[in-house]
Amino acid sequence: MKKNILSFLILVLCSGFFLFSCTSAEAPPNYTQDNNIKTEIPEPEIVLRSIHDDALVGSPAYAQLRYLCKDIGARLSGSENAQKAVEYMHRVLDSMNLDTVYLQPVMVPHWERGEKEFCQILGNNSDKIEQKILDITALGGSVGTNGGLKSEIVAVNSLSDLENLSKKEAKKYEGKIIFVTQPMDAKFINTGSAYGACSSVRVRGANYASKVGAKAFLIRSLTLKNDNHPHTGIMIYQEGGKKIPAAALSTNSANYLEKILTKAQKENKSIEMELQLNCEILPDVLSYNVIGELRGREKPEEIITVGGHLDSWDLGEGAHDDGTGCLQSVEVLRLIQKLENKPKRTIRCVLFMSEENGASGAKEYARVAKEKNENHIAALESDSGGFTPRGFRVQDSTRLKIIQKWQSLFEPYNLHKIEYGFSGVDIRPLEDSGTLLIGLEPDSQRYFDVHHAETDVFENVHEREFLLGAAAMASLTYMMAEYGIE
Amino acid sequence: MKKNILSFLILVLCSGFFLFSCTSAEAPPNYTQDNNIKTEIPEPEIVLRSIHDDALVGSPAYAQLRYLCKDIGARLSGSENAQKAVEYMHRVLDSMNLDTVYLQPVMVPHWERGEKEFCQILGNNSDKIEQKILDITALGGSVGTNGGLKSEIVAVNSLSDLENLSKKEAKKYEGKIIFVTQPMDAKFINTGSAYGACSSVRVRGANYASKVGAKAFLIRSLTLKNDNHPHTGIMIYQEGGKKIPAAALSTNSANYLEKILTKAQKENKSIEMELQLNCEILPDVLSYNVIGELRGREKPEEIITVGGHLDSWDLGEGAHDDGTGCLQSVEVLRLIQKLENKPKRTIRCVLFMSEENGASGAKEYARVAKEKNENHIAALESDSGGFTPRGFRVQDSTRLKIIQKWQSLFEPYNLHKIEYGFSGVDIRPLEDSGTLLIGLEPDSQRYFDVHHAETDVFENVHEREFLLGAAAMASLTYMMAEYGIE
Repeated sequence: MKKNILSFLILVLCSGFFLFSCTSAEAPPNYTQDNNIKTEIPEPEIVLRSIHDDALVGSPAYAQLRYLCKDIGARLSGSENAQKAVEYMHRVLDSMNLDTVYLQPVMVPHWERGEKEFCQILGNNSDKIEQKILDITALGGSVGTNGGLKSEIVAVNSLSDLENLSKKEAKKYEGKIIFVTQPMDAKFINTGSAYGACSSVRVRGANYASKVGAKAFLIRSLTLKNDNHPHTGIMIYQEGGKKIPAAALSTNSANYLEKILTKAQKENKSIEMELQLNCEILPDVLSYNVIGELRGREKPEEIITVGGHLDSWDLGEGAHDDGTGCLQSVEVLRLIQKLENKPKRTIRCVLFMSEENGASGAKEYARVAKEKNENHIAALESDSGGFTPRGFRVQDSTRLKIIQKWQSLFEPYNLHKIEYGFSGVDIRPLEDSGTLLIGLEPDSQRYFDVHHAETDVFENVHEREFLLGAAAMASLTYMMAEYGIE
Repeated sequence: MKKNILSFLILVLCSGFFLFSCTSAEAPPNYTQDNNIKTEIPEPEIVLRSIHDDALVGSPAYAQLRYLCKDIGARLSGSENAQKAVEYMHRVLDSMNLDTVYLQPVMVPHWERGEKEFCQILGNNSDKIEQKILDITALGGSVGTNGGLKSEIVAVNSLSDLENLSKKEAKKYEGKIIFVTQPMDAKFINTGSAYGACSSVRVRGANYASKVGAKAFLIRSLTLKNDNHPHTGIMIYQEGGKKIPAAALSTNSANYLEKILTKAQKENKSIEMELQLNCEILPDVLSYNVIGELRGREKPEEIITVGGHLDSWDLGEGAHDDGTGCLQSVEVLRLIQKLENKPKRTIRCVLFMSEENGASGAKEYARVAKEKNENHIAALESDSGGFTPRGFRVQDSTRLKIIQKWQSLFEPYNLHKIEYGFSGVDIRPLEDSGTLLIGLEPDSQRYFDVHHAETDVFENVHEREFLLGAAAMASLTYMMAEYGIE
């Protein structure tokens, strides 16, 4: 008898779980006619449902991402691998029976890391300083150290502290290695905001260090995770300033260095460091944006660009940054191509080159668009990782309302967050011509764990999360292509 | 000059990214007075912000989860490890200076797996059948095979096909091993719904196989991921029916077996299988629910229960199922304890025993509550994994509106989804006394990859995702405790 009750209760619970947890997304699509739409195309509810069905069952996108990451790998702007990636994605688009597929030439920067970096704290028996090797990576665009350099290492708490040193204070940093300890702030809910609030340390910091006569510049990697993987990323030298080597320590190494520097300062001791960066800046190289297009059936002159960037840093495989954005954009074309009707407006997938090193591909795409007097009504970028989509960031507070009108269509797919926000670096140059700029917003918690680090590999991309992102992009792209954004 | 423009553009973009991506969650809390709240307690916006700050910086919960998973490990109901977990969590609550901490005794089922299972397809040269070992796990509650059994294996497409076999068809399954190939449906957006739609195959399937005289019953593991890890879970024998052994194959093994069975059927060949399950059902054991309480400062008799289940399956470490729910519930007490005022109503953290094997801990907690005539106004459970929280499932369509009133307070923390849905197995028995039942809803995409499998380990829990879940629970618990749910 006891078992009977138990059994009954659990059966109720199991079926209960099913019934209760069936949200509208799971319910069959709504077939009622909307008389406001004077067209024979199916109801948007039905189209968005079939887009998601096709994405979740039998999509080739994840296997294509695997090839890009495992068979080609990292795709640093100007590198041989970047060229291989251009050729592979060109083949993929060519095989899709699109209306147009082409390469758009663009000159891109070519920075190379050279041999792996070396960084160690020099031991000092009299001061009881332990010799220790630290995890380090050169920042993208940095000059090398011309062999190793040895110097005292000194800590500064933040970029603004470094920026605002008095002449007198500045003196004591001359000829030394400056380490700005400033971490990303874990209290931000969205890690992208924590990154945005801290990224100028990496981008501009070396210039302030150079101004006070420092020999080299170190930062704590821009991540909220404590581990041994340093994170690279672009840094920019100020015109006319002295170029000093710049690098990032893993968070574990940064924590260790900060701790012993604090102790040494209390005890009036100094700590010497040996640093070697073998990177160099080479002449610009000819490369390409990879472009494929579905021409609009009624308004072909109105263009919607969907894209991500094909280049990556040389650590890891550029899986989340931004292999996922590239294959999601290609998948948008495939998913919309599978629908009964061709899209009303033109949908163009653009895989931008050299986003990490200054977005020259993005600028060239916008320049050509302007030159040809093309009408770019909207652009959608995925460059925040291939994680579960949460919604869209719309970079125009007025036209945001147009997208928000469709909120109820997106919510069954757990796309609740349609807010004002930054879209993406690659579509940004289209803003001057009035294009509506939109960024896919995936869940942000894990992105900066792997961003620009050797852990950004295919194995860390979850197939369903990645495909749901592609389906979200295809859904919004379809709505804009079919119904416009007026 | 080129560099100047480049540098300028990137600086704009970096700061731009910061400005654009700052949502209200990142902005300083809003200090405006709400005159509807006649109390001196701080504005809810401020309290929820401080709850999230405390969770994201310096919480002990992730280290406690590590201990539960790595130092204790799997905690099967009735096992020695389950007792160790009871003692550890009791110590944790005891150390928190709560108003009440106690163990609630309950008799629980004790099922043991015994030696690892063995399953292989028997080779057959004349029929060109290759011998192959398959990945398998016994289902929880199953009887063993009393040594190995050998028999022909036959496939059935679904539970309903098995349920609806005609007498004539049924004959051909007599004395054989039945394999129901039915997979979870990848088209569901929320994987919990895909699980709910399929779980009765695991829970009830063996009874239908037994009715047609099968020797044993196999299913495809309940997961959407293709890998070599079989997933266990409860199965229930019907009173009076013959108990036959029941087990789950890994999805890769199930795919292989389905393929060769289809081929064999076409060629009129049969396939023999050897199966050994060493599990057994032992007498019930005395165990405990672990309980800690913060007494309400004004309405101590009104109780809000927050909880998860302390037991787990014996594969993996019970990390997401449900170590995260337990430590998140303990963290709710810590976060609310840190606030200036004691909560207005009583908050009780309950770590339920034996959820996986029939929820006897849950039923005992509800029985005692009724016996003591306690007033349980609400209960909140976390038992869907420690992933990024998306919102709450409220198991009452009327009182759902009360919780939805607070939506704007939760949205800055990306908690958008406050919908009708099933709460949780452990709080379910409280429903009879009118308690409002709520389940934390985390992102569901990765949960069933690890659910009931050896991959449910600490390393697969992301610290920030887990802590944001605890902060979401603490935020809702605080609102209900302070403002009630009338």
